[in-house]
Amino acid sequence: MWVLVVYDISENDKRNKVARELQRLGLSRIQRSAFVGDLDPQRYKDLVRICEKLVNGKEDILHIIPLGLRDWERRVVISGDSDGREAVPLL
Amino acid sequence: MWVLVVYDISENDKRNKVARELQRLGLSRIQRSAFVGDLDPQRYKDLVRICEKLVNGKEDILHIIPLGLRDWERRVVISGDSDGREAVPLL
Repeated sequence: MWVLVVYDISENDKRNKVARELQRLGLSRIQRSAFVGDLDPQRYKDLVRICEKLVNGKEDILHIIPLGLRDWERRVVISGDSDGREAVPLL
Repeated sequence: MWVLVVYDISENDKRNKVARELQRLGLSRIQRSAFVGDLDPQRYKDLVRICEKLVNGKEDILHIIPLGLRDWERRVVISGDSDGREAVPLL
């Protein structure tokens, strides 16, 4: 299952921990606070469980959004870096 | 066409301007730097044009991702606020 994960987490340590956990689950970073990737059902459950544990600040919010692969391929990326940040490992 | 827009923009003024423009186009804010909504083809073109104009800092990046409405309805929102930030005007 392809998912996009985007979040606002105010506390640095917690935000970094979420990023590390998402990478550990095999998701690829596309922005500072946005990851995308393909998860099997067990890893998807792990994702929800880990995020429920870590996202607990009053202002914190995280979205897990299922993503059609064809939709993802039709994305538009606009970057101020002339090299393009699509150099970030995508899919 | 349903789209999700997520961005990293380092300069405050520019980031606020992008948020205002996305709201003006009719998108709904779901996080500090993430919007979602349904755009007709002309507004979609406006969106791309405006973002190309505003997203120009070296570290800046913005993704416009087409979104299936059924995928969007299957999202999981995890919030530290017990009231739930789903009170944010969604769709």
